[in-house]
Amino acid sequence: MSVPAASLPAVPARDFAGIFSRVAPHMAALDQFLHAQLSAFEPEIRAMADYCIDTSGKRIRPALVFFSGWTDADEPSPALVQVAAVVELVHLATLVHDDIMDEADVRRGRPTAARKYGAAAAVLLGDALFAHALHLASLFPTTEVCRAVSESTRKVCAGEIVQTLRRRTVGITRADYDRVIDLKTAELFRVSCELGARLGGHPDAFVEAAARFGRHLGIAYQIYDDLADFFGREQRIGKTLGTDLASGKLTLPLLFLRDRLPVGERAGLEAELEGRAAPQLERRLAEMAGLGVFPAVAAEVEAELALGEAALADHAGLPPAAHLGSLPLVLRAQVAALG
Amino acid sequence: MSVPAASLPAVPARDFAGIFSRVAPHMAALDQFLHAQLSAFEPEIRAMADYCIDTSGKRIRPALVFFSGWTDADEPSPALVQVAAVVELVHLATLVHDDIMDEADVRRGRPTAARKYGAAAAVLLGDALFAHALHLASLFPTTEVCRAVSESTRKVCAGEIVQTLRRRTVGITRADYDRVIDLKTAELFRVSCELGARLGGHPDAFVEAAARFGRHLGIAYQIYDDLADFFGREQRIGKTLGTDLASGKLTLPLLFLRDRLPVGERAGLEAELEGRAAPQLERRLAEMAGLGVFPAVAAEVEAELALGEAALADHAGLPPAAHLGSLPLVLRAQVAALG
Repeated sequence: MSVPAASLPAVPARDFAGIFSRVAPHMAALDQFLHAQLSAFEPEIRAMADYCIDTSGKRIRPALVFFSGWTDADEPSPALVQVAAVVELVHLATLVHDDIMDEADVRRGRPTAARKYGAAAAVLLGDALFAHALHLASLFPTTEVCRAVSESTRKVCAGEIVQTLRRRTVGITRADYDRVIDLKTAELFRVSCELGARLGGHPDAFVEAAARFGRHLGIAYQIYDDLADFFGREQRIGKTLGTDLASGKLTLPLLFLRDRLPVGERAGLEAELEGRAAPQLERRLAEMAGLGVFPAVAAEVEAELALGEAALADHAGLPPAAHLGSLPLVLRAQVAALG
Repeated sequence: MSVPAASLPAVPARDFAGIFSRVAPHMAALDQFLHAQLSAFEPEIRAMADYCIDTSGKRIRPALVFFSGWTDADEPSPALVQVAAVVELVHLATLVHDDIMDEADVRRGRPTAARKYGAAAAVLLGDALFAHALHLASLFPTTEVCRAVSESTRKVCAGEIVQTLRRRTVGITRADYDRVIDLKTAELFRVSCELGARLGGHPDAFVEAAARFGRHLGIAYQIYDDLADFFGREQRIGKTLGTDLASGKLTLPLLFLRDRLPVGERAGLEAELEGRAAPQLERRLAEMAGLGVFPAVAAEVEAELALGEAALADHAGLPPAAHLGSLPLVLRAQVAALG
């Protein structure tokens, strides 16, 4: 399934920041665009929206838009900047609402919006960010962007709801997990690539390939993120470790651990996931190490990255393909840095 | 400012149900359309969305769409039904989120979504309803509906945020109150009339007049609703009375009471609004009665209704005008029934 090495760009890819520096002017234009949007918000909300924009992190989804729409033009295209803002605002809105539900205190080393402004204001702030994202989408000449983004937004919410409803239940299957991450993460990655490629004026076949690439990259990214919740370094990823165990969220590392534990030893883990016993992170990490959970999960990331690369294989000559193709390399390096 | 009596339809208007029976086939088509939308939601969410649709109450906003777009055609127009669904879903989403923030237990005699499914699921359910509303808006041939609805949605959220931020603060002015209700209520009434008139194919001048009518009706309706929180009958309006005093929300009846109380007696009311003292509903109702708060607030409703009627005065010959014109009559009857 892997794409021939010759078609991959030979970049020293270590982290997303390194890759994203290639679209630094685009990111600067996005930042300017996002801050200019603040004037559209009521005065009371501007500071809150500004706070969210500034704590938004890596901007992977905008990078997917810029890479997928790449045309070797000198200037970032205004349409790409606008659609990058749309997907980023949708993502920011979901973060604001997620942090309410997770009762999270900190995101990227700063208090969450829910903690800083209260849960009630955060619910509405997320709504306002959603609404503004859709408004920006509706300013394109046709309904295509609005249609795609509203559909994706609904899927993202559906994924979050299903995940929330399944908290603290242990009867989760691999298929359940796959479906949730497809909805909550891969869908927005997918639509970022699709709309980027479309607005970049690339051929339909590439638009479809970019969308498939985005989906597999999104799945891989979420599995990596779930792995990092156990094997990351707190300072580096900027959040507390072991939160999925503590909150009873049965992610892939925990699914693999559960299935590899001798049947007689599963009850303790299930009690922790169901909130009937205190989470024993150290013990579970030791068991994961003993049972080979890390390499097994890493192999799942790799399988998705290979599928993503395969989706681009027929389009290696197009300008966006080399940029997109560097993202799996970064994610591989990130996974390797955890291990 | 009042419109000549001759241009008003002579209907025995007592309540909204009576008026809305004129658009019964439209409402039935809307209900069918809304339930057909459930299949677009993930299986886990369908029952939750269904529950919200069934507890949604009067459907004033869809009625505004149908009345504004009235053409004397035999069949309800699919475009009007779809746009009615859009505004109703936006409204339902805001109700779901409002009930989380208000920690409300009951709406229309049934448990709120937040109480039934938990606050976390309710946050996301509201998001999914918003997203689906915008998706339906994006299915129109042009971006007009999506543009108008996303803008209105943002304003509704902004109004709710500003109101939430001002809870338990007593330095609210009349201008503050007016701005909040303009955003949180009048905007969606306005856009319902505007889009109804537009999709009904009516002339631009009427579209603009209908929008102005909708805005004034929305302001009047919210003032009436705030009045009913003190002077309604619990069984009839299906919710607890005095919630605005208890939650420290300085609505017009409370603003008028505060301003009419002798300066030396305001501290007690302010302590209740700020949550430093238990709310004394009976005492405040007695003071409102003694200080003429009810007729003063009712006069404000009347002033807005007159402005709404004036907006329609030049269009008395158009089919929608008679239908829209009956709504102020109903609201007057509702206010009279409180007093």
